[in-house]
Amino acid sequence: MITINENYLKLQDSYLFSTIAQKVEKFTKENPNKKVMKLGVGDVTLPIAPIVGEAIKKATDDMLQKETFRGYGPEQGYDFLRQKIAQYDYETLGVTIEKDEIFVSDGSKCDTGNIGEIFGTDNVIAITDPVYPVYLDTNIMAGRTGEYNQKTAQFEKVVYLPTTLENNFIPELPSRKVDMIYLCFPNNPTGTVLSKPELEKWVTYAKKNKAIILFDGAYEAFITEEGIPHSIYEIEGAKEVAIEFRSFSKTAGFTGVRCAYTVVPKELKAYTQEGKEVCLHQLWNRRQCTKFNGVPYITQRAAEAIYSNEGQKQIKENIAYYRENAKLITQGLQKAGYTIFGGKNAPYIWLKVPKGYTSWEFFDYLLEKANVVGTPGSGFGPSGEGYFRLTAFGSKANTLEAILRIQNLK
Amino acid sequence: MITINENYLKLQDSYLFSTIAQKVEKFTKENPNKKVMKLGVGDVTLPIAPIVGEAIKKATDDMLQKETFRGYGPEQGYDFLRQKIAQYDYETLGVTIEKDEIFVSDGSKCDTGNIGEIFGTDNVIAITDPVYPVYLDTNIMAGRTGEYNQKTAQFEKVVYLPTTLENNFIPELPSRKVDMIYLCFPNNPTGTVLSKPELEKWVTYAKKNKAIILFDGAYEAFITEEGIPHSIYEIEGAKEVAIEFRSFSKTAGFTGVRCAYTVVPKELKAYTQEGKEVCLHQLWNRRQCTKFNGVPYITQRAAEAIYSNEGQKQIKENIAYYRENAKLITQGLQKAGYTIFGGKNAPYIWLKVPKGYTSWEFFDYLLEKANVVGTPGSGFGPSGEGYFRLTAFGSKANTLEAILRIQNLK
Repeated sequence: MITINENYLKLQDSYLFSTIAQKVEKFTKENPNKKVMKLGVGDVTLPIAPIVGEAIKKATDDMLQKETFRGYGPEQGYDFLRQKIAQYDYETLGVTIEKDEIFVSDGSKCDTGNIGEIFGTDNVIAITDPVYPVYLDTNIMAGRTGEYNQKTAQFEKVVYLPTTLENNFIPELPSRKVDMIYLCFPNNPTGTVLSKPELEKWVTYAKKNKAIILFDGAYEAFITEEGIPHSIYEIEGAKEVAIEFRSFSKTAGFTGVRCAYTVVPKELKAYTQEGKEVCLHQLWNRRQCTKFNGVPYITQRAAEAIYSNEGQKQIKENIAYYRENAKLITQGLQKAGYTIFGGKNAPYIWLKVPKGYTSWEFFDYLLEKANVVGTPGSGFGPSGEGYFRLTAFGSKANTLEAILRIQNLK
Repeated sequence: MITINENYLKLQDSYLFSTIAQKVEKFTKENPNKKVMKLGVGDVTLPIAPIVGEAIKKATDDMLQKETFRGYGPEQGYDFLRQKIAQYDYETLGVTIEKDEIFVSDGSKCDTGNIGEIFGTDNVIAITDPVYPVYLDTNIMAGRTGEYNQKTAQFEKVVYLPTTLENNFIPELPSRKVDMIYLCFPNNPTGTVLSKPELEKWVTYAKKNKAIILFDGAYEAFITEEGIPHSIYEIEGAKEVAIEFRSFSKTAGFTGVRCAYTVVPKELKAYTQEGKEVCLHQLWNRRQCTKFNGVPYITQRAAEAIYSNEGQKQIKENIAYYRENAKLITQGLQKAGYTIFGGKNAPYIWLKVPKGYTSWEFFDYLLEKANVVGTPGSGFGPSGEGYFRLTAFGSKANTLEAILRIQNLK
């Protein structure tokens, strides 16, 4: 009898963004004349940079000629791209990453999900709370959690690290021993960051406890303040304890193009039950070679295009546009009396919902009264209750309109 | 202490094609003047069809304009492509597949590997022997096998179904009960096919034993003979017991473009340990939504382009080219005294190695004496010993040259 992976039955019913989409669809059907402003999902809206379009067309011409056609590429990515990543994203930070420590992929959602396959299911995971749902859900599927506890709104066996106003959005080191620590900074959903000394604490913890840090740097391009690490490898010794995930999605507007990468340093080790050291770089390489066939040649040429003076200029213009939106939202809502976090080093604005509302109640209120869609904080975890996320990825016109509508509610 | 997934330690040292690549690299370094003919890896060599190139460029223009830009797409694929797949690949066979039963992906290697995630690790798997290594390796990683047995060259707990000259390359139903059955027809590596009555036996077996068939149809476009099923869903009732994997890699020369799809019918069920039915369509949908972000918009437009009169004409020309190669290899090697299988309904030619050679010895012999690279049958499993695979994906000139060299060895 064919049996299922019963861990799937522990998953909560629907994915956060599907629930939002359903609510918005229902509202739109019932109110066809109202224009809904979507500042919910973190999806970009500006077109790809011209230089990226040129690169795609040029690569397509390569694929159309027998002499330059490319079939299966290396599962880890083409050298031309890995080399540029090492140079532009790490050398500039004073960090040495070898090109074969970089694994090019089709997205950080896949990578942060799939990475779990190389680890034992007995490891204890720690996640910040609120958190990007993929870290938790993929671990539920893998069997690293117990059942869902309705009372605490938490999964058993998981260590939740609250990041709230109470601790100034800086998670405390866990009180019990953990093995896999998911950190995303600049943070989704709170938009907050960790200073270098704060991040150092985690590297020290991981070394001391033989834990591993899964560091998601998807939003590093949005950092504006000095002294905030763009990569965990800026911390001394982090290569011994951290895997870093980076994506072109928000940096270069690639949410529909699909390209990302994961850095697995060669000095990174994990252990067998008996305590024997195993090189994780080899394990991840084997995983990728067996279950993945590489990113399209055309996509890798598209990603390569941003690593040039002109490419950097063009993508930075787009980022500046979203940053300006973040600033407008922050200022506009502060003016309307809201307490705002994030937004300065991230495309996410995290706000306290007004007294008397839950996150979902505030979602419904904004949708019905202002026709603005955001994301309820509780959807990211129990400590997200009482908060609400807005994103800076809309058009400037829509963003301004949304702010105005929220201001007029007051 | 962070522990690894120790199932990875059971994997055999290196992936078949890496070993071949290393041997070829060594030979080329030592013999820089000899031109090596590669008929080893199943990678296409003809450029993408012109209509596909046009579609990519048009889709790139969409991505360059704010009004037509696409960010995150549906994880399951765009309707425009799923609709065409249902119509061109299934309606034409008289098979009804709903568009939302089709999950577009970046490759069948990923899909045949990832599909295991939704099943329990207690299921007994059956694989034909020889077999495409990914089916086995991904199950080793998942923990569905025991240790490797040096004596039998088999993994414990796995049911091997020999497909050799002795049974005319038709696997027999397993003598012990199995739960997950991997079938790939037209077969890689043997190039042989199953008739409709033979495939019916498997569907009947699966129904009777509550097993599931994982049917890999990557090479269906190469079928030339009447009466050979192109899809397992041509068998009555197969939708209740089978998942089908299809790829654009060999059909449309997409090995470097990366697009495939998996059909998970809604009537397909698996069970909890307690025997409760669970809908696999929902489970796979949840897996894809959580761990995958969809195939690039541009790639899906590229795939869509082949589903038109002109698109079909162009890709069929490429397939005809490879078929002609297969015919030339078959006739040429038969003339040289070899016993040949496959080639008629598949891009693979499977030959008996001459008496006195093992598969790897014949590999070395061909490389050294004829400078021709093929794939040793034993690399696909113990029953592949004594066989050798050649592929029809080379250029016609190289294929003819390779045949001539092998003929001249005699």
